[in-house]
Amino acid sequence: MGALRLPSLTSIFTFSPARSSLFFRRNNHFHLRNLTSATKVFAKSTTPAVTEVSPADSNNQKTGPGQQQEQGITPRSQDFNAWYLDVISMAELADYGPVRGTMVIRPYGYAIWEAIQDYLNVKFKETGHSNMYFPQFIPYSFIEKEASHVEGFSPELALVTVGGGKELEEKLVVRPTSETIVNHMFTQWIQSYRDLPLMINQWANVTRWEMRTKPFIRTLEFLWQEGHTAHATPEEAEKEAMQMIDVYTKFSYEEAAIPVIPGRKSRVETFAGADKTYTIEAMMGDRKALQAGTSHNLGQNFSRAFNTQFADENGQRQHVWQTSWAISTRFVGGIIMTHGDDAGLMLPPRLASVQVVIVPIWKKANEKTEVLDAALSIKDVLHASGIKVKLDDSDQRTPGWKFNFWEMKGVPLRIEIGPRDVSSRTVVVSRRDIPGKPGKVFGISMEPSVLVPHVKEKLDEIQLSLLEKATAFRDSNIVDVSSYDELKEAISQGKWARGPWVGSDEDELMVKEETGATIRCFPFDQPLGPKKCLMTGSSAEEVAIFAKSY
Amino acid sequence: MGALRLPSLTSIFTFSPARSSLFFRRNNHFHLRNLTSATKVFAKSTTPAVTEVSPADSNNQKTGPGQQQEQGITPRSQDFNAWYLDVISMAELADYGPVRGTMVIRPYGYAIWEAIQDYLNVKFKETGHSNMYFPQFIPYSFIEKEASHVEGFSPELALVTVGGGKELEEKLVVRPTSETIVNHMFTQWIQSYRDLPLMINQWANVTRWEMRTKPFIRTLEFLWQEGHTAHATPEEAEKEAMQMIDVYTKFSYEEAAIPVIPGRKSRVETFAGADKTYTIEAMMGDRKALQAGTSHNLGQNFSRAFNTQFADENGQRQHVWQTSWAISTRFVGGIIMTHGDDAGLMLPPRLASVQVVIVPIWKKANEKTEVLDAALSIKDVLHASGIKVKLDDSDQRTPGWKFNFWEMKGVPLRIEIGPRDVSSRTVVVSRRDIPGKPGKVFGISMEPSVLVPHVKEKLDEIQLSLLEKATAFRDSNIVDVSSYDELKEAISQGKWARGPWVGSDEDELMVKEETGATIRCFPFDQPLGPKKCLMTGSSAEEVAIFAKSY
Repeated sequence: MGALRLPSLTSIFTFSPARSSLFFRRNNHFHLRNLTSATKVFAKSTTPAVTEVSPADSNNQKTGPGQQQEQGITPRSQDFNAWYLDVISMAELADYGPVRGTMVIRPYGYAIWEAIQDYLNVKFKETGHSNMYFPQFIPYSFIEKEASHVEGFSPELALVTVGGGKELEEKLVVRPTSETIVNHMFTQWIQSYRDLPLMINQWANVTRWEMRTKPFIRTLEFLWQEGHTAHATPEEAEKEAMQMIDVYTKFSYEEAAIPVIPGRKSRVETFAGADKTYTIEAMMGDRKALQAGTSHNLGQNFSRAFNTQFADENGQRQHVWQTSWAISTRFVGGIIMTHGDDAGLMLPPRLASVQVVIVPIWKKANEKTEVLDAALSIKDVLHASGIKVKLDDSDQRTPGWKFNFWEMKGVPLRIEIGPRDVSSRTVVVSRRDIPGKPGKVFGISMEPSVLVPHVKEKLDEIQLSLLEKATAFRDSNIVDVSSYDELKEAISQGKWARGPWVGSDEDELMVKEETGATIRCFPFDQPLGPKKCLMTGSSAEEVAIFAKSY
Repeated sequence: MGALRLPSLTSIFTFSPARSSLFFRRNNHFHLRNLTSATKVFAKSTTPAVTEVSPADSNNQKTGPGQQQEQGITPRSQDFNAWYLDVISMAELADYGPVRGTMVIRPYGYAIWEAIQDYLNVKFKETGHSNMYFPQFIPYSFIEKEASHVEGFSPELALVTVGGGKELEEKLVVRPTSETIVNHMFTQWIQSYRDLPLMINQWANVTRWEMRTKPFIRTLEFLWQEGHTAHATPEEAEKEAMQMIDVYTKFSYEEAAIPVIPGRKSRVETFAGADKTYTIEAMMGDRKALQAGTSHNLGQNFSRAFNTQFADENGQRQHVWQTSWAISTRFVGGIIMTHGDDAGLMLPPRLASVQVVIVPIWKKANEKTEVLDAALSIKDVLHASGIKVKLDDSDQRTPGWKFNFWEMKGVPLRIEIGPRDVSSRTVVVSRRDIPGKPGKVFGISMEPSVLVPHVKEKLDEIQLSLLEKATAFRDSNIVDVSSYDELKEAISQGKWARGPWVGSDEDELMVKEETGATIRCFPFDQPLGPKKCLMTGSSAEEVAIFAKSY
């Protein structure tokens, strides 16, 4: 079978062979230590417990490994899950809420979500959708109206049974998703074909009573956007569902630097109440799949259940055709698990709330003023040119500590400036994604006409490099298989298996039972030529991708 | 007693005597009729039932009153509450949700909330706050920790008692506000004075099980932002609480054109758990007061209840000093009830999602092309200059119908363009806030260099004029009183009473019982000179404002 092509969206990036040599460079970053300000959340000590590392300059942060390691990040290669939780806590992305399975999204983590919102909100409006807001309390009877919907969601519901001190006559569902209440309202708003298409979106919290939770990836309450549309024809609904999965795909590649594979879900994995579910599937650093966004063609399932009809141009009453689509705070988890390394978080520049951190370096008091003045002026220049820049001018921490800290926080680019740099009117620029000297450029002029374009170019290079690295990792971990044995072998190696499939739902469930892998999707990008199902040997139309997943 | 000055923030606007003659001009707008597209939501008819009004041009929309009136807006003067509900439904701002007391915020109403968010979100960040997100489920035991807080909120709680099909061991409160869970987390995050101030905000939904509800003004679930801060000293907390009520005040005057009166709440009206509550009080069109935003100095009430402590510079453990502050979707109701008139909604230009609507006028087919071409080019010119513009090019409706429709939707400015205008390369510009000919300017050149500045100037004039009109209305409905009899007289006339007050809590509650009025605030802006309490005759430090309120 021919290798699959990347989705066409990736063609916006130019892949250069010279860059690809960086893909598997061993990451030599040292572990964090002495992160008292980051770790105290978890230490809960009652004393400030500030342990300073010895003074460090632009070079001696590399002397770190010899020092005592204290509450560093678990190496990613050693324990991916522990590493993930360490990154979330030390980078102050989120914290556990008091109720099991809930999460507090802290400012640095919420800023990633805001960047996602800022991009998508514009795209949704450009594609004709309006924001609005539906109540989160849904009468229980609504959930029961669509048969497969209630089957899918009833085990996960949170119910309000008491309001204002009184037992409620009808218990209320805290929305797990809003198709039912949306259709209840659409039925009132839609009368004729002139009211169609009706295309709305809401940014909201949703609740699903999950038993096994994980910060960002699966929490009792999470934040998302949910788009809901109604159309006069099935063709329009299908076009809309595809348009929105394309918006998500483009977002993933261009903004998040995550090379998702867009495709169609199997019947087994289709949303409860949809005719078809489209998905973007991302490969995490541990090679598990993450369903990072979905778009559903709901057909007439909800419009029949809620009698959402319109009068067509001939005055005939017809049920509307619908879609819904969502991306959630889960995506933040996807960013962490795609790009992070042993040193911590690594943010794609386009979603980073701090794109550049400036670390001033001085030893003597008389050096401090001139270094800080220069650093401040660089900050102002970068800020004025639209770059998100932070100057870490604290004198509580050494430069070496700051280097480690901001690397752990995933800031894409660091500018170092010391007394000698001030004399020569230059700075050192360090990339987060390339450890050590190969990632540094020395002697960049402070002149705005030189520095600003250099920084912008570096940010673009990092953005591209993260995508290239993730793409190479993904492609080297997808195995084309033509038999069930090959599939089992690939999955047991922790890889994704891609092979022709016309198996039954039962076959699919058996694969899950025996290997732990599910069909992630039938990718839109399909190989040409005849295919035989890896399970049944029958002629197959499509390949499917199997993987273990979050 | 000397007349009270307006808050100093209003000095940013220049009041000109020439303009004030407009304040009490009789509003001659005609009622809407035949608003089939707007009213069908409520009619729920199963046929499209489109009843066209007769063709109208730029002038004959004035012939309307003789025509049959069908589901028009109840005149404001006749029944303020019915008018309010009519505006909300016909302008498609909101709709009732399926659960009693809940509200669906429709796109045109949500756009007002988005404009509020856009402005405040920037101001919050400029003043040093970061956005984040706390879970909405709060263990019931948390609510009980602060004594006055539980007393204030327990009658209004919605409780989740079942999750994932199982009865929960501890029932969960759906947040009515987040002080308790915020403090639970702050206690973990704050160790030393270096962690202070901690200044955050969240945009979220909240639930209060209200018995008497009204769209936007009081709903079971509503949207808001809630800011929460922790400080090392009481002075810093007080400064922050004042800073945020100032942000709200400035927003109200400059963006919403609502001349709120900022002040301090009485003990009786103080937030459950606060030492002091600051408020902005707005006078609605029916002269009832609306509490439009609040900022609380929480003192150490929550930090003591949740043991939120920090080590000061001497290593001493101290409880933090806190604030919280909020504005909600209630503010949208305040905008409607401040500026609306018999013709419907009237939006301040700075919060309008459509600032200018272009209505093309043609009779013959050969006129249509040239008129639409010109209208489209005007739209592009205005859009390019940052003006929010809509071209209503539908040929399903007459221009007269469109005039009424967009007036009802509160669009500040209308541009009319017909065949003769195309010939002369001019347009007619009509203000929403000044009915009939006095609000029209004829023969404005289509040249971008003329049209764009003209439109921008008109929008600024309307913004200012709405504030002036509301300010004059407010000031003419506040009566200075020096005795309880005078107070009762003022309240019985539907006005606000302002007089010196050192009465007890019991006195205040008696006033409420006997007149229906409460102390809205002790305004920041106080008259000079000695004062005697209107109730007790004792020497008083301050005047209070009494009014009936929402």
